[in-house]
Amino acid sequence: MNIVYLVPCFGLLALLYTAVKSSWVTRQDAGNDKMKEIAQHIAEGAMAFLKAEYKVLIYFVIIAALLLGYMGATHENSHWSIALAFVIGAVFSATAGFIGMKIATKANVRTAHAARTSLAKALQVSFTGGSVMGMGVAGLAVLGLGSLFIILKSYFGAEANTAEMIKTIEVLTGFSLGAESIALFARVGGGIYTKAADVGADLVGKVEAGIPEDDPRNPATIADNVGDNVGDVAGMGADLFGSYVATVLATMVLGSETVSHDAFGGIAPILLPMIIAGAGIIFSMIGTLFVRIGEGSGLNTGVVQKALNMGNWGSIILTAVVSYFLVNWILPESAMTLRGHEFTRGQVFGAIMVGLAVGTLISIITEYYTAMGKRPVKSIIRQSATGAATNIIGGLSVGMESTTLPILVLAAGIAGSFHLAGLYGVAIAAAGMMATTAMQLAIDAFGPIADNAGGIAEMSELPKEVREKTDILDAVGNTTAATGKGFAIASAALTALALFAAFVGVAGIQGIDIYKANVLAGLFVGGMIPFIFSSLAIAAVGRAAMAMVEEVRRQFREIPGIMEGTGKPEYDKCVAISTQASIREMMLPGAIALISPLLVGFIAGPEVLGGFLAGATVSGVLMGIFQNNAGGAWDNAKKSFEKGVEINGETYYKKSEPHKASVTGDTVGDPFKDTSGPSMNILIKLMSIVSLVIAPTLAEMFHTKQPPVPPTVKTETVKPATKTVSSKVTAYLVEKK
Amino acid sequence: MNIVYLVPCFGLLALLYTAVKSSWVTRQDAGNDKMKEIAQHIAEGAMAFLKAEYKVLIYFVIIAALLLGYMGATHENSHWSIALAFVIGAVFSATAGFIGMKIATKANVRTAHAARTSLAKALQVSFTGGSVMGMGVAGLAVLGLGSLFIILKSYFGAEANTAEMIKTIEVLTGFSLGAESIALFARVGGGIYTKAADVGADLVGKVEAGIPEDDPRNPATIADNVGDNVGDVAGMGADLFGSYVATVLATMVLGSETVSHDAFGGIAPILLPMIIAGAGIIFSMIGTLFVRIGEGSGLNTGVVQKALNMGNWGSIILTAVVSYFLVNWILPESAMTLRGHEFTRGQVFGAIMVGLAVGTLISIITEYYTAMGKRPVKSIIRQSATGAATNIIGGLSVGMESTTLPILVLAAGIAGSFHLAGLYGVAIAAAGMMATTAMQLAIDAFGPIADNAGGIAEMSELPKEVREKTDILDAVGNTTAATGKGFAIASAALTALALFAAFVGVAGIQGIDIYKANVLAGLFVGGMIPFIFSSLAIAAVGRAAMAMVEEVRRQFREIPGIMEGTGKPEYDKCVAISTQASIREMMLPGAIALISPLLVGFIAGPEVLGGFLAGATVSGVLMGIFQNNAGGAWDNAKKSFEKGVEINGETYYKKSEPHKASVTGDTVGDPFKDTSGPSMNILIKLMSIVSLVIAPTLAEMFHTKQPPVPPTVKTETVKPATKTVSSKVTAYLVEKK
Repeated sequence: MNIVYLVPCFGLLALLYTAVKSSWVTRQDAGNDKMKEIAQHIAEGAMAFLKAEYKVLIYFVIIAALLLGYMGATHENSHWSIALAFVIGAVFSATAGFIGMKIATKANVRTAHAARTSLAKALQVSFTGGSVMGMGVAGLAVLGLGSLFIILKSYFGAEANTAEMIKTIEVLTGFSLGAESIALFARVGGGIYTKAADVGADLVGKVEAGIPEDDPRNPATIADNVGDNVGDVAGMGADLFGSYVATVLATMVLGSETVSHDAFGGIAPILLPMIIAGAGIIFSMIGTLFVRIGEGSGLNTGVVQKALNMGNWGSIILTAVVSYFLVNWILPESAMTLRGHEFTRGQVFGAIMVGLAVGTLISIITEYYTAMGKRPVKSIIRQSATGAATNIIGGLSVGMESTTLPILVLAAGIAGSFHLAGLYGVAIAAAGMMATTAMQLAIDAFGPIADNAGGIAEMSELPKEVREKTDILDAVGNTTAATGKGFAIASAALTALALFAAFVGVAGIQGIDIYKANVLAGLFVGGMIPFIFSSLAIAAVGRAAMAMVEEVRRQFREIPGIMEGTGKPEYDKCVAISTQASIREMMLPGAIALISPLLVGFIAGPEVLGGFLAGATVSGVLMGIFQNNAGGAWDNAKKSFEKGVEINGETYYKKSEPHKASVTGDTVGDPFKDTSGPSMNILIKLMSIVSLVIAPTLAEMFHTKQPPVPPTVKTETVKPATKTVSSKVTAYLVEKK
Repeated sequence: MNIVYLVPCFGLLALLYTAVKSSWVTRQDAGNDKMKEIAQHIAEGAMAFLKAEYKVLIYFVIIAALLLGYMGATHENSHWSIALAFVIGAVFSATAGFIGMKIATKANVRTAHAARTSLAKALQVSFTGGSVMGMGVAGLAVLGLGSLFIILKSYFGAEANTAEMIKTIEVLTGFSLGAESIALFARVGGGIYTKAADVGADLVGKVEAGIPEDDPRNPATIADNVGDNVGDVAGMGADLFGSYVATVLATMVLGSETVSHDAFGGIAPILLPMIIAGAGIIFSMIGTLFVRIGEGSGLNTGVVQKALNMGNWGSIILTAVVSYFLVNWILPESAMTLRGHEFTRGQVFGAIMVGLAVGTLISIITEYYTAMGKRPVKSIIRQSATGAATNIIGGLSVGMESTTLPILVLAAGIAGSFHLAGLYGVAIAAAGMMATTAMQLAIDAFGPIADNAGGIAEMSELPKEVREKTDILDAVGNTTAATGKGFAIASAALTALALFAAFVGVAGIQGIDIYKANVLAGLFVGGMIPFIFSSLAIAAVGRAAMAMVEEVRRQFREIPGIMEGTGKPEYDKCVAISTQASIREMMLPGAIALISPLLVGFIAGPEVLGGFLAGATVSGVLMGIFQNNAGGAWDNAKKSFEKGVEINGETYYKKSEPHKASVTGDTVGDPFKDTSGPSMNILIKLMSIVSLVIAPTLAEMFHTKQPPVPPTVKTETVKPATKTVSSKVTAYLVEKK
């Protein structure tokens, strides 16, 4: 039975949904001429950035593809076609970002116009925009992974547990590498862009000139709104595309090593993550139906949050229930074995549940640490009373504290899913968590669309009620963005571990013993990478923001009548500053992520590289949680002043001294939560994938010993490999039987 | 030959030096009545804190001693006397802090008076004060370790490589545990005290009321000056006492496992670190002779810095040279073996040189990242032009970046010293680095003494020239404090690794394989500990500072004539706030450090605990470097404004907008660099020592398998254990032969 063909069909279905919904959004009214003009500015700025970014990335893709092709052609366990898979992955990832940005720059102005009618209508337009992006990303991922797997499997004539299957999966790793590399550059570049513009616009506009956010007199305001699209939309789209692919792939790699006697020729453990991802698409579609509010709904965040929760929980619960049947349908009744660990399909389902539980718990914890009205944000508010310094100390402290519970949950999840179904359990837990990516992304992406709509409303001087409605959507979007980041970091940690485990197998090492001095040294160096990466990303924002500040100050000084609204600001100059800075500044961190595992691996060998990866993963997860949550908490501490907060019996509002202190905190938090923090999850996955790609080469170079037969493995009859198998591969296969 | 008796003699010699120099300081003129009165206030406040702190710690020591005694009495490889060793370690550590504080509160006012005469005289008094403390700490450490070793060895009748020697060293671990526990509480408590007072005094005094630092009208000013003594002096003294003991002990533990055929009955590898420490004391004494400047020296920092460098380098170079002879005298000509790694005495000397090189390089790098006029500090200054937010972003970025080079040096040092002399090499590298602790501490402690002298000069309204001189000493003290922290974190990392290695041996595990899911989970949890610890420490400072701010505001409001100098501020209320807050807030972080390894070890077993320790060490070193250097860089960015800085062609001074931004950064950096940052090195060592202490119990509980005989070990005739040896110990010994 060829259920494998189902996988690309799920992908095509998602893309069909994207096309239909996209055309619906386009058909909505884009409002008056002024709105259209502003939207046009934003769309052009965003497109200019994407063009500039992709132009640079083409060189990177070509060079990397040549290197990969050479490596693939000269190594037995690989193939030159890994270069092709890499290019396809990169192109798909770039396309995912492009789709997101295209729809977002259409949906923003239409949401603004819809908000002139009702909150319900505005939610419908912005959320549909988000879901177009979500489905586009998930559809491209499933389509790409599924069809490449089918093509490669048939090209190599791969059967379960043969050298050909190893090669098939190895080549498929190239797809993930392509996706994740583009994701890193898009996330970092977009993150620098959006925060340079945001910080720059705020520092001069709000703080110095005293004009409100999104005021059309502020020359950086268009750049700021472009930033929402290239960072929070295009960057995040590429990010989640990469994450989604990496998670499914990691499970496939471990699935390809799993010995299974099933109805699908032994490849059921490889198919399962793709089928679950496909099913997740369907249930995300169903989930979107729940996201609607009545026309007569009151103007408050509660009703919108409830609708989104309905959609989110609906799709998660459906996926959880249906995966029970999928697991029982696809996986065999008899026990499966992976590297000496035996497990049943019931345990695999258990691991999926562990994954969902971990994701949910971490989301809840994240929300606690970043939401208004809870203890952490309130503590920051209280510390704003004594100035910016104590506000910052408070936020840093909250961010560091917020690592504790997620790490404990994660550690329990790792131990639990491993206990149930070995390394396959760890990987499938992550895959289960990511199954409803389409829905997650829809919920994440509607926020920046609403934010942009608010900007357009402000700049085109629509009545205050319009802005009020978009503000409600934006506020809900902030909360969902925070929980989305919690989900992303949790799944990234599990995925990185699965990739790490796959790496150990492919590199042919027996384990990673940190008691060895070299490996421990690797652990230290790996742990340092997220620090230098974050440092570069944060510093880039600081530098670019300063350039922006100086340009805005210059325009205020030199353009006559700009503050009276009679002189026209030069928006394009600010757009150009953000674009150039972000392209320039994304290079070095990107290069560090890609090159450091190569250096460590080729100089010090696979076991030290394993230590390096472990160090980077632990430190990356910690730094990710710390930065995301500190940034989120500062942001909401500042927002709390809009409705007034009570400190020691006095109520403070916007423009009060404590509020000013909180604005400083929020500005510090901007690069944390939107540039370096969210890059951490891509960073750790990308380094693991790079390592996995070079693992066969390292195994050859360092003549890594094959692991001895683990004592608990059942001896079973082995299907012989269908083609000539090198001694290396034989040894590899022998290990598993 | 009983060279072991030399060790306590070195200690006694150092204590003699302490007594002589201390009485010299006491004999100096303490100035006029006003100065004496203020100094009296400070001394009383400091003593009140120490009393309050030690009162609480007595309970902790009693409870911990009972538990240890029970554990020691019920386990074969240990002994009830470990409780006694623990108590002695705790008392010695507390005494080290006490000595430091006593001399510092005498030297401060005498330095102020000496500064009325000349810079040379002021340096002499303050540096002599520092050296009293340095020698006191080193003397107590060497005396305690040396005499306990002699007593225990004779009590158990221990010979090299016997179960009795294992027991001797195990009991000695209790001494280190006692020392390091007190160190942690002293460092954290003192750190919270000093920064709460400092931040509180600055926020209201400098920022709100616009009065200068150390103005007698500020009610928090006495608390601020007390803080220098309890944090930077007493806290640091206990800290370095603990570090010094832990480093020497770690080498002794590994030395006790080393098979050596030497002139000292096989215990040469145990003796070597103690002898080197003793020699370091002598050379530190010689080094202090170089620290003097001519009476006619100009009033600038260069001349003082040069004198200190002379002393520092003199003692380091002397120690390096002499250790060549010591190594060749004490260690045997034939190769030694530790866990399958064979090494010669030449290689041991090489490892010592590696340790010195690592320490020196990390100090130089630390200085680069925190010194005025270098790129990192200048970048923060430039970012101050656009406000507090960009200043903070700049500092965080510099701090994160500053982890890169030290980690690379450290990784190379680990790999290098291990390559030379195995795990013994890693440990002796740390011991070599710490040999001149007495000198290091003298250089570190003179800074806060000078700082205090400046405060006293200000409060007793001495002429401006006096303050100028103490400011020069203080400025130099800031630089040496930064490099001292670099040294401390580097040696802590190596010590923690040596303890970690010792733990693996004692716990009887084969290695720590992070490829195992549980161990990896342990790595994550361990990595999180420095984050929650830092969070608690930082938050404590924030909270205590706010309480201080409110009290100072209240006094300004309610005490009539306080701003005119006619009303007297209630200094004692502020002292009480800092004292209570620091005692209360040091509990939880201290408990986490002590209890978390117990929980992980007893629940999840020794290998998971190993992963936990590795995670904590890596993350602790990173967080330590990050926080220390970010804080140091912010501080010096602020200080740079005193002489004026140029940003974009304009020169800015104190009270300019960029300067105000830099004050905010400095305030954020205060808890980083003086509370949480410097606690990191104690934290990682303390957790390793706790683990080492419980390792024999864990080995019994978890029936840890003994490692197989490593292939490279030479078979040698084994001295039979002199008394009945349990099967466990036999297995342990067999492994090594």
